[in-house]
Amino acid sequence: MQGMNFERILGGVCAPGGFLASAVSCGIKAKGELDLALLYSELPAVAAGVFTTNELKAAPVVYSKRSVGGKSARAVIVNSGNANSMTGSRGLADAEAMSAAVEKELGLPSRQVLVASTGPIGNYLPMKKVRKGIKQAVAELSPGGNTDAAKAIMTTDTYPKELAVEMEIARKVVRMGAMAKGAGMIHPDLATMIVVITTDAELDADMMQDWLSKAVQWSFNRISVDGDQSTNDTVLMLANSAAFPEGHTLDSEERDLMFRALCWLTANLAMALVKDGEGATKFLRIVVNGARDDSEAVQVARSIANSNLVKCSFYGGVLNWGRIASAAGSAGVALEPGKIDIFLGEKMVASGGEPAETDLKGLEKYLKRDEVEITLDLGLGSGSAYFLTTDLSTEYVKINAGEVT
Amino acid sequence: MQGMNFERILGGVCAPGGFLASAVSCGIKAKGELDLALLYSELPAVAAGVFTTNELKAAPVVYSKRSVGGKSARAVIVNSGNANSMTGSRGLADAEAMSAAVEKELGLPSRQVLVASTGPIGNYLPMKKVRKGIKQAVAELSPGGNTDAAKAIMTTDTYPKELAVEMEIARKVVRMGAMAKGAGMIHPDLATMIVVITTDAELDADMMQDWLSKAVQWSFNRISVDGDQSTNDTVLMLANSAAFPEGHTLDSEERDLMFRALCWLTANLAMALVKDGEGATKFLRIVVNGARDDSEAVQVARSIANSNLVKCSFYGGVLNWGRIASAAGSAGVALEPGKIDIFLGEKMVASGGEPAETDLKGLEKYLKRDEVEITLDLGLGSGSAYFLTTDLSTEYVKINAGEVT
Repeated sequence: MQGMNFERILGGVCAPGGFLASAVSCGIKAKGELDLALLYSELPAVAAGVFTTNELKAAPVVYSKRSVGGKSARAVIVNSGNANSMTGSRGLADAEAMSAAVEKELGLPSRQVLVASTGPIGNYLPMKKVRKGIKQAVAELSPGGNTDAAKAIMTTDTYPKELAVEMEIARKVVRMGAMAKGAGMIHPDLATMIVVITTDAELDADMMQDWLSKAVQWSFNRISVDGDQSTNDTVLMLANSAAFPEGHTLDSEERDLMFRALCWLTANLAMALVKDGEGATKFLRIVVNGARDDSEAVQVARSIANSNLVKCSFYGGVLNWGRIASAAGSAGVALEPGKIDIFLGEKMVASGGEPAETDLKGLEKYLKRDEVEITLDLGLGSGSAYFLTTDLSTEYVKINAGEVT
Repeated sequence: MQGMNFERILGGVCAPGGFLASAVSCGIKAKGELDLALLYSELPAVAAGVFTTNELKAAPVVYSKRSVGGKSARAVIVNSGNANSMTGSRGLADAEAMSAAVEKELGLPSRQVLVASTGPIGNYLPMKKVRKGIKQAVAELSPGGNTDAAKAIMTTDTYPKELAVEMEIARKVVRMGAMAKGAGMIHPDLATMIVVITTDAELDADMMQDWLSKAVQWSFNRISVDGDQSTNDTVLMLANSAAFPEGHTLDSEERDLMFRALCWLTANLAMALVKDGEGATKFLRIVVNGARDDSEAVQVARSIANSNLVKCSFYGGVLNWGRIASAAGSAGVALEPGKIDIFLGEKMVASGGEPAETDLKGLEKYLKRDEVEITLDLGLGSGSAYFLTTDLSTEYVKINAGEVT
């Protein structure tokens, strides 16, 4: 079985067998855009989820977190245009009602429909419109509905994000697909990442939960556009065994392959979310090596990625490694200044905590690129991590100040 | 002794008896601006200091922190235009050399001169110019040099910041004075707060260190313009007993009075630093009440003050309490959504974690003001705290991208 690998294919959440999707415009958004997406598995499926760590969890997060505890689900309903967040017990009842409406239309038992919402915080959902939309969405379910569904969950994303891969396992074609919406939050009131992943493999629910948690840790938890974690962030995964009508328990190599495929999907979606971060003119990859351990490396990389001063200097295309050093030093990790090397691209700009001789002309050119890599070697151990972010532009401020809509 | 109080007077670090100051342009800054400030106490003085917690401390911070350990100092030398940060052993030797040059010119024993620097990170100091400047600064010391000194430590501040108070203690006039430079830092490469406080009272060195740590905690540690703590932040205090030639140990009421005066000085300087934060169009005061304890209240207030989304929405003058709630929820403090009330000015916008009936017209008007107060009641206990910050403007980004110089 050496050389087992996965390949990227076209499609999204409907690429795996047995998944249908649809999208409708139910009137939550004012201008008639698609605002309600439905995903349905024709077969029973195991479910896993990872949710925001924000203390103020939106109603659909509270609801879906509880339902995912049952480890199975048949459908996911997602609305955009309203986060159903900071809406109290009425909001929670609305999230339950969305789920119940889908269950009723599809004839499912309770707790089989997961719910996610994204949009402005602090408004109650227009439930009459939502109920009507759900009826229509159920009627329109199809194996080709994935791209419209990816569109319907968008808020300020400039394009729908989906990805799919396929691989061969036990002489069957197995697929994994996903859709995602904007991490970088940035539009007035809109501040959420939603990701839905599907597969037709047969997976153990606990193992899948463990995989998903790890994959999120290495992808969506390593990106930042404005540093805030929203009240609604949600990553869901469903596995329906459609590829194996007679059942197939994955062996250890097959599990490795599937887990690698999942990590590839999440890492690539995370990168797409950052690159589509609003107002961004540059994509920044921060790499920290030589930390005592990986978690300290993450802390330092995150601190640099969240520094407005660093982000502004890259927007301006100016060399300013002092800001990078200062942000690293305020990460809450013990550092030894005399051991730190800093690189922009492949050029060393600081060596042992002091200015390095550098080719300034070459750096100026490098700083004008759309993608810039900053590498720190802390000289303390073998821990490493990366973080992806964008520059901070005047456009970002205008968008978030409500000047651009 | 009831009613004992202090009064604000004109002046700065030379308001207390026995303190002289001067400022010169020694050529660190390119355009001939004042860039070297000297403060000198004619009498022996006890000293205290609070320094940046950034792991990468600039050379003058390392040097002065060590010297303050001796609990006495006669002078403070401060340069602007170069942070002497990330400059390794050469930078540390330069900081020591600055101190030694002042000691030599003033005939002082070693470790009696504290050093602070502010400006771009990662450049070695032009020591020949600095030495020449120190000679001139010593020659020009005068009791009227305080305002020029306050100007010489400026980087991107738009005006020099000084304050002084006086009070009567044991039938003597006792004074306290201070100068400060820019917290908000924001200009390319410039990212430091420097504060120097003087008094002619007789103070115990350990008590003064304790007072200064507390006063800083309640003032400079409650402000944020861009959330980063610099490599150079320094707050120094000298007390020379000049008001009491024959000595006077403060009694408990007198100590209370002096400590209140110190807290008033630092709180007012902190406010001045925020209001002069670059690119700022609005001053935001975040108040958090009803936390389990004060430290949790600080955490929540800081998280709101550092949220780009919150800061952008106030720049735009748009009502967006969902962002405030979301930032509060990501502070790392356990919250109960259903207990949270949010106020803008005196108007409640969220009650028990849900939208409150509000006078939207009145709010729109309030949001256009230069100073806006956001209050959260978490409903969990009696802890409270405030944090001061500014909005995030397109001007901030332009300044920090190097587009404005």
